[in-house]
Amino acid sequence: MKLSKRALDIQASPIRKLMPHAVKAKADGVKIYHLNIGQPDIPTPPEMIEVYHQFDHKVLAYGPSQGLEVYQKSLVKYYAKQGIELEVDDIIVTIAGSEAVTFAMMVAANEGDEIIVPEPFYTNYNGFATMASITIKPITTYAENGFALPSDEEFEKLIGPKSRAIMLCNPGNPTGSVYSREDLERVAALCKKHNLFLISDEVYREFVYDGLKHTSVLEIPGLEEHAIMVDSVSKRYSACGARIGCIVSRNKELMAATLKFAQARLCPPTVDQLAANACVYLPDEFFEELIEEYQSRRDLVYEELMDIEGVVCKKPEGAFYVIANLPIEDAEDFVIWMLDHYRLDNETVMAAPCEGFYATPGLGRNELRLAYILNKDDLKKAMHIFREGLKEYKKIKG
Amino acid sequence: MKLSKRALDIQASPIRKLMPHAVKAKADGVKIYHLNIGQPDIPTPPEMIEVYHQFDHKVLAYGPSQGLEVYQKSLVKYYAKQGIELEVDDIIVTIAGSEAVTFAMMVAANEGDEIIVPEPFYTNYNGFATMASITIKPITTYAENGFALPSDEEFEKLIGPKSRAIMLCNPGNPTGSVYSREDLERVAALCKKHNLFLISDEVYREFVYDGLKHTSVLEIPGLEEHAIMVDSVSKRYSACGARIGCIVSRNKELMAATLKFAQARLCPPTVDQLAANACVYLPDEFFEELIEEYQSRRDLVYEELMDIEGVVCKKPEGAFYVIANLPIEDAEDFVIWMLDHYRLDNETVMAAPCEGFYATPGLGRNELRLAYILNKDDLKKAMHIFREGLKEYKKIKG
Repeated sequence: MKLSKRALDIQASPIRKLMPHAVKAKADGVKIYHLNIGQPDIPTPPEMIEVYHQFDHKVLAYGPSQGLEVYQKSLVKYYAKQGIELEVDDIIVTIAGSEAVTFAMMVAANEGDEIIVPEPFYTNYNGFATMASITIKPITTYAENGFALPSDEEFEKLIGPKSRAIMLCNPGNPTGSVYSREDLERVAALCKKHNLFLISDEVYREFVYDGLKHTSVLEIPGLEEHAIMVDSVSKRYSACGARIGCIVSRNKELMAATLKFAQARLCPPTVDQLAANACVYLPDEFFEELIEEYQSRRDLVYEELMDIEGVVCKKPEGAFYVIANLPIEDAEDFVIWMLDHYRLDNETVMAAPCEGFYATPGLGRNELRLAYILNKDDLKKAMHIFREGLKEYKKIKG
Repeated sequence: MKLSKRALDIQASPIRKLMPHAVKAKADGVKIYHLNIGQPDIPTPPEMIEVYHQFDHKVLAYGPSQGLEVYQKSLVKYYAKQGIELEVDDIIVTIAGSEAVTFAMMVAANEGDEIIVPEPFYTNYNGFATMASITIKPITTYAENGFALPSDEEFEKLIGPKSRAIMLCNPGNPTGSVYSREDLERVAALCKKHNLFLISDEVYREFVYDGLKHTSVLEIPGLEEHAIMVDSVSKRYSACGARIGCIVSRNKELMAATLKFAQARLCPPTVDQLAANACVYLPDEFFEELIEEYQSRRDLVYEELMDIEGVVCKKPEGAFYVIANLPIEDAEDFVIWMLDHYRLDNETVMAAPCEGFYATPGLGRNELRLAYILNKDDLKKAMHIFREGLKEYKKIKG
């Protein structure tokens, strides 16, 4: 039986294909420090877990397609605290950020239309694009200048009759870059000039360092009809397994259409929404401590990387990733070699090769993404192993 | 800003558009018996709720994209008990049956391809088809003969170069019909002859009455490469809010492709999967009592309907719906009239007009779907109000 072309074409997870090597190493008793995935180690807030413990409905029933009203109202408060004034109807609760991105693509673009995305970008955008039958047009950004937003001229080279939106990830996975208000105003002007939606993935909104302030696409005046924000509780509350996100826009027609997509799949999970709801009421110290912890991890990883000969990287300003340009040809080969062959006291390190984060063939081959999602003791050990491994690899393969 | 064509075209929930009338009636203090939705009133098993209470992970982490292994293995046992032998890799856990249907459509068909579905069908298939950019070709079935499977000739009139699959709902929502093994063998032969997938929505698998035995598409020999089964815990365990389903096929290439779609959205919710897992180990009495209860409800509703002059319907063999052909012109108008104007002791009844379950324009206009998801006392009251209301409506509008 012949499968659909899209089933054959959809990108396999570039990280997943390395898993057999990790499984093999683990089976051999090797401890792996995982810097390859965005799964935080920070405990989920007990206030959230407590909601699961207290769940007392007799029937675990469908909720409304737009999300439980109690949670929508809490989200209005959450965004108000960030300086974003919203109405309940501006928010539809989604099944994690994944569904929010898919809805945004489907509502903004038809089959065959194009969405412009700065690369490197979160690799699963490719999968969502396949599901939505749209084409991602990548616009390359560079480690050397901190993955800065490309110029208007670069964008306009890509904008054509099929362009329907520009999509940003801010703060950026995998880049760690944070767009300034000026950056957003510039891309907003482009979107208004060319009648494009501006989709902004802000799931790392709180993860900005050195006293920087995050700017949401929803804060740009005059962009109400264009701005679509996608969000998720996964990273912010270490609640990746809850699968709760949302799509937010002040464009009423767009939200009415999104609701029809949401109605088809009935509703997001009920208990998980109630659990996510509790997180909105965590004390301010929760994020203060969280960001302090991540900032010190970032400092540690960045300093360790700077200490390795031939490694180039810009200090990330946000999210919890750093992209390192390595003095080798093939970062994926290095990752596999570390898993298959390199051990220090029977431990090794796994990172994510960056090639899969680029849509332009050939880019990112000598780059790795490291997620600083371990405690500092483990991170220190991991970076030591990483440095020693890289030294050894260069000796053998260089 | 112009939205995508599909955002404008996607079907609004035909049931939802009646909600303002229900909200208004409730605001006026009227009690509504809801026979319009498939939300069971049966309590969710305490064994399932207990899993939420006992959840003790420190970090609510991502699970595997294919689902938690513990749950996949339990599902193998669940299906074995139904006489269906499977391997773990034949099952991918999905975010409810909704995602399973969407995945099945996307893997089987390309944009613009066609899937043949007997109508009336579950109205949200339309939304999934829009999301998957495929076309549903309806093949009409008729209340008069219990919505029997159409003849091979009828199917072959619709099978063309763009046909990629036949999709069945068995037991049927909204028809209540159950396909026999002979029915399935016949449609299986058609699928083999014309190289079509056979997608079978079996979320009501246990809901068969009068000692009938349900036959799964996975039980048909020689259909391994063609058969795709979609399933959900929602109805079976009164757990609609958990959003846990699965897609099952022995076609290895198809499952490998489906896994890539699943990887893009990362994973189904973690705690809900653990909760669904507990349901697999419920004692046999759970379903015995459940089916006995639903069968007696069906008998009650069916007998009450048979007692109303001019109403035509076949006794449903499965699921928990019955379609009633009414002696009026416009069933939707009747539903709205009941909500707006008819009260008996300040109570009224809401049912689902069937027009939205048909893809062929004009069909189903005088049909209603009643879901027997209330206890028998309430059902009896509801059916009394229904009969009196219909009498009154005919007097006024007839």
